[in-house]
Amino acid sequence: MKRPVKKGRVTIPGQEGMDDVIAKLIERWGADAIRDSDGTKLTEYAKSLTDKVYSKYFFSRGDQNYARKNQNRSQHFYLMSERYTAKEEPLSIRMMDTYYDRQVEPEIRYHPSEWWEVIDRTTGCVLGTDQWEYDEERMEVVIHSPSPWHEYTVSFLARQLWDPVHMYNSLTNGWDVEPHMPYNPFFPETRDYLLSRLEEWLDDHPDTDVVRITTFFYNFTLVFNEEAKEKYVDWFGYGATVNPEAIDAFEKEYGYRLRPEDFVDEGYYNSPFRNPSKAFRDWISFIQDFVAELARECVSRIHDRGKEAIMFLGDHWAGTEPYGSRFKSIGLDGVVGSVGDGTTLRMIADIPHVSYTEGRFLPYFFPDVFCPGGDPVAEANDNWLKARRALLRNPLDRIGYGGYLDLAVEFPDFVDRVEEITDEFREIHDRSKGERPRHLSCKVAILNSWGSLRTWMSHQVAHGLWHKHAYSYSGILESLSGLPVDVTFISFEDVIETGIPKDVDVIINAGSAGTSWSGGDWWENEVLVSRLRSFVHRGGGFIGVGDPSAVQYQGAYFQLADVLGVQKEVGFSVNTDKYTDAICRSHFILEDIHEKLDYGEGTSGIFQLHSKVQILDESDGEVKLSANEYGRGRSTYVAGLPYSPQNARLLLRMIVWSSHKERELDNFLPTDPEVECAVYDRERKLIVINNAWSRKAGAISLPNGKEVRYDLFPGGYEWYELIP
Amino acid sequence: MKRPVKKGRVTIPGQEGMDDVIAKLIERWGADAIRDSDGTKLTEYAKSLTDKVYSKYFFSRGDQNYARKNQNRSQHFYLMSERYTAKEEPLSIRMMDTYYDRQVEPEIRYHPSEWWEVIDRTTGCVLGTDQWEYDEERMEVVIHSPSPWHEYTVSFLARQLWDPVHMYNSLTNGWDVEPHMPYNPFFPETRDYLLSRLEEWLDDHPDTDVVRITTFFYNFTLVFNEEAKEKYVDWFGYGATVNPEAIDAFEKEYGYRLRPEDFVDEGYYNSPFRNPSKAFRDWISFIQDFVAELARECVSRIHDRGKEAIMFLGDHWAGTEPYGSRFKSIGLDGVVGSVGDGTTLRMIADIPHVSYTEGRFLPYFFPDVFCPGGDPVAEANDNWLKARRALLRNPLDRIGYGGYLDLAVEFPDFVDRVEEITDEFREIHDRSKGERPRHLSCKVAILNSWGSLRTWMSHQVAHGLWHKHAYSYSGILESLSGLPVDVTFISFEDVIETGIPKDVDVIINAGSAGTSWSGGDWWENEVLVSRLRSFVHRGGGFIGVGDPSAVQYQGAYFQLADVLGVQKEVGFSVNTDKYTDAICRSHFILEDIHEKLDYGEGTSGIFQLHSKVQILDESDGEVKLSANEYGRGRSTYVAGLPYSPQNARLLLRMIVWSSHKERELDNFLPTDPEVECAVYDRERKLIVINNAWSRKAGAISLPNGKEVRYDLFPGGYEWYELIP
Repeated sequence: MKRPVKKGRVTIPGQEGMDDVIAKLIERWGADAIRDSDGTKLTEYAKSLTDKVYSKYFFSRGDQNYARKNQNRSQHFYLMSERYTAKEEPLSIRMMDTYYDRQVEPEIRYHPSEWWEVIDRTTGCVLGTDQWEYDEERMEVVIHSPSPWHEYTVSFLARQLWDPVHMYNSLTNGWDVEPHMPYNPFFPETRDYLLSRLEEWLDDHPDTDVVRITTFFYNFTLVFNEEAKEKYVDWFGYGATVNPEAIDAFEKEYGYRLRPEDFVDEGYYNSPFRNPSKAFRDWISFIQDFVAELARECVSRIHDRGKEAIMFLGDHWAGTEPYGSRFKSIGLDGVVGSVGDGTTLRMIADIPHVSYTEGRFLPYFFPDVFCPGGDPVAEANDNWLKARRALLRNPLDRIGYGGYLDLAVEFPDFVDRVEEITDEFREIHDRSKGERPRHLSCKVAILNSWGSLRTWMSHQVAHGLWHKHAYSYSGILESLSGLPVDVTFISFEDVIETGIPKDVDVIINAGSAGTSWSGGDWWENEVLVSRLRSFVHRGGGFIGVGDPSAVQYQGAYFQLADVLGVQKEVGFSVNTDKYTDAICRSHFILEDIHEKLDYGEGTSGIFQLHSKVQILDESDGEVKLSANEYGRGRSTYVAGLPYSPQNARLLLRMIVWSSHKERELDNFLPTDPEVECAVYDRERKLIVINNAWSRKAGAISLPNGKEVRYDLFPGGYEWYELIP
Repeated sequence: MKRPVKKGRVTIPGQEGMDDVIAKLIERWGADAIRDSDGTKLTEYAKSLTDKVYSKYFFSRGDQNYARKNQNRSQHFYLMSERYTAKEEPLSIRMMDTYYDRQVEPEIRYHPSEWWEVIDRTTGCVLGTDQWEYDEERMEVVIHSPSPWHEYTVSFLARQLWDPVHMYNSLTNGWDVEPHMPYNPFFPETRDYLLSRLEEWLDDHPDTDVVRITTFFYNFTLVFNEEAKEKYVDWFGYGATVNPEAIDAFEKEYGYRLRPEDFVDEGYYNSPFRNPSKAFRDWISFIQDFVAELARECVSRIHDRGKEAIMFLGDHWAGTEPYGSRFKSIGLDGVVGSVGDGTTLRMIADIPHVSYTEGRFLPYFFPDVFCPGGDPVAEANDNWLKARRALLRNPLDRIGYGGYLDLAVEFPDFVDRVEEITDEFREIHDRSKGERPRHLSCKVAILNSWGSLRTWMSHQVAHGLWHKHAYSYSGILESLSGLPVDVTFISFEDVIETGIPKDVDVIINAGSAGTSWSGGDWWENEVLVSRLRSFVHRGGGFIGVGDPSAVQYQGAYFQLADVLGVQKEVGFSVNTDKYTDAICRSHFILEDIHEKLDYGEGTSGIFQLHSKVQILDESDGEVKLSANEYGRGRSTYVAGLPYSPQNARLLLRMIVWSSHKERELDNFLPTDPEVECAVYDRERKLIVINNAWSRKAGAISLPNGKEVRYDLFPGGYEWYELIP
């Protein structure tokens, strides 16, 4: 087959003084759009080389004149001090102990006695304001007569002195610049200013085709420690959305007042791994309302000038919630986001209510990777292999790169490799002609405390980053991102209030006990467990990973142990003998699995509840993988599922077996688990991709009784014509 | 030095038809006492060969005539059925599903509607008696209109048809005998019968010098499943002490009525790994009162005949509680128990208020070990090495063996090895002349929910048996059993009510989160945590193993994280960055440790709380061993401590460092961690033992500046004279 066109669907970053390089890369990578980055500008010549010019735009930072003059309209965090243990004397708590004094400072424009909270963490009691005072000069809270040997914390309002992303970019690149101080559009004056500044900026940028909003108003939660190293990061966090005016407005609207503890949350700051409190969920709604309303106004002014408005998925995106109910109203043309893997690709590609999506591929052209000893080609390859399988399921409309070109061009192999990747990307679009490939007739629902609001977002600490306590679960989404099944996200509340959606075939509950992903206390809800039992008993599928349905309650730890056929020993039933039946070595789920299974961190203490459950793998007498029949339904358990091509195949088989659809794998299933394919029935095409860095040769059965034989280079791919 | 005397302090089992063998073994093993076993009798000749004759005596089983005629005075359990999930129809629960019908049957002499409980385990609600009925013929409880998809259990009173130890012995040895049915002395008639039968028996046994009570009235909890395999075992359990009359009497005395759930405990049956409820603790007191009073009466009748009364530590020992407040009143002359390791040896040897203690060494002469392919010598060696180091700390007065001689004599190597062991045992007594060896000036307290009642008993599922969920903690007691430190056991209640004993230098809290050994909810108690912080801050030591002070409360998982310097990630603080400082490779605690440390099951997710803590070992960026200064005190953390000679040395160093007594290890510390010594100052003797099965040569520094050089065979020992 002939290679498709060499141009389009690609955005590259520009940079002053590199026009020749830009022109060459536009040619080689087939770019049709050019963008600026934080700290760079585009020349007129550069702008003339592509069909479209993207210009970044910051709403709540960048105008230092305004910021300096309006320090009473800053952005804030609620921060918690370290825990201090009292001795038999007054206790002084230095709140700034572990914070970076160039990023934040205690806010005293709002009186500490009204806006701060001192808590005895040994009893959970809030101290009366007569029991402590704030020493402004020493930046210490002094508790006059603490209970000796109790621990105390101060929750204090902290003003943001340096926008965290500007700070990160500045420190990482060694910029000698004035810290950008964020300002807060929750103040009507600042809102007016933002809009008029936008109008001015639009006046000044007639060449701009696309305003790349980077981003709206509030950054995700990102706080640094006293050494300017990252201290707390929550890509989904609302930490920076706090300010007293908003809290007052919230009280008027919701009828109750939020406490500092509602934000500080014992020091966990409403991590997405926590079951969200009602107060926090209300706050998310409140901030979404505010952000969506103002964002809509901004977008409409951009549209009025005939320009497109796209949003960067990240940075100041708090409250935009692409999968929330207010997102549509913002009216964005597109979303561009960083593709860290298949999961983050789907997080971008699946966003509703936009005309197009664009993925910024990794590595970012930053000196942490583009440095002596760095291997950007390896990063690009790893990124592409994970992204490609997800792209086949739901292609992004565009891809691009970010950062500083002068760094990238020092690595010619990398420039070559990006040329291949951009070609391969365009080829998918050109050959599929917009058709979505065939998928199995089963729909998978991920069940957790967040549901659809966190579509493709579960088990993530920060964008796409590996985390020891998450990778054994985030592998589920990563596997699903490239599997030929429909995926939906539902919450416990959804199930309790409206039941399990009729079109769902298999439900997955995965996570560590007590987290929002597993569900914690939700599992004491009788409606929830009854509906799930009934669903499976009538023929549905259930897949548990790690600590599914886990809460210690009424003699059970996994509340759905009857459905799963396995239970977990946490120490209370050690006196009950455990018997492990023989391993079942031949099972539909285990076909294609030839290497030792990898459960990541795994889960220990899992034992069979009865001898009817089929143990598919065990270690030290404990169950690692099992399958159970429950009424007319089926359930499987796995101790952990980090992403690997083999585990993706394992999950596919678990899904298909759990939904009784084994026959659907009779065709179009490559013999190697590392190889996947996508079938375009209308276009009569088949693409086969090799997800491994070794050569793979095998076969794919076709419905007509024939087969396609493939022989793929490491990481390679091949298109085939399908003859009916 | 000359070998000491060859006779005394040893009891051997006798058996009919083996008089020649017995005579030879008495000579070779130096036995001065002979005993019968379950199923054996002694001949007149055999009895004439030793100074003393022990006769076993069973109180609550053995007279089948009485048992059959008095089935209304049986013993019982409260058992819980399996969990049944209701569908949209009446639910039948077969209570005997997973029980052995020759061991138990549902008791209907006491009306089910009054004595049983049907519980909806999905809501925790108890069903009204109008909602279910018992079908006697089918042995099923029928719930008329259950809530669909809820789980239900029946807690039912079960009559014991077969004494569990008699059953175990019968099945293991293949005896074809009528099951011994236990009878219950809580009935005044049975009490009278027991006493009169004892008098008769004493009349019939004029040759008996020592009545070996095997044992009193109620067996530890031991329940078998439908295949006659062990289903539930709790060596410390009170399951078999339940009966309706006792529950009525309890109500009169304690002023409240116990429910079936107080015994069934969600199916955990008050496992010692559970924090004991008030009801269960009251029940233990109530049963202790009853058992001690009747046992005292029995013992006094034995004494009246001029015989000694010793109790077997095990079997029907429920309620005797050797470390309880009523034990002294029983007036026993001695206790004999099975020595599974150093811990169980100390459990016997440390028992107060008796004139002597005797250890029955392993292996027991039973066909499970004494069979083709069995290796009784290896078991005896392993047993002896663990026991010997504990023996040196607190010697048993006597040792012995049990079981069937005809099995043992088939293994001549074993007979030889026992001859060496009995000699070595007597030599310790002969050379030390009753002196207890020198110990360090620091006292260790094990802190858990049970305190002194479970002295040397924590983390045990069944006597001395390895358990995956316990060995990483039971290694602490096993290590301590042979270390030169005083050990005491205190409870959280002790600390809260009366404070930490003045003579305690180091406190150890060890266990899995939520268990009675770690403490669970106790750690929310402000007095407890305050007293511990104060204790350490003023100079005390604290050692945490596994999940010390663990309960999720007020933003902390380890409540004493400030003392320990480490905290555990359980999923809520994944957004907080963790930094691990460099490993500290040179530390007092690590001296002598040359092999990779073994933490058993270990504990994951441990991270440093601040950079002042010293990380002594880590894995995957997580802390495994650490040391922290807290005020004038010190604290150490270790992820698990299964027993090994190296871990015993590690624990010794942790204790000594935590109590600031490093100088006490300047002398009398063998250079090999596998070698230990005991110093008898009065007798001016030193014994050096090799706890490893490899030859060890090294040195021991003496206070006079000289040193003892040792060169020991595998498992060997040597005595030395100390010149002042």
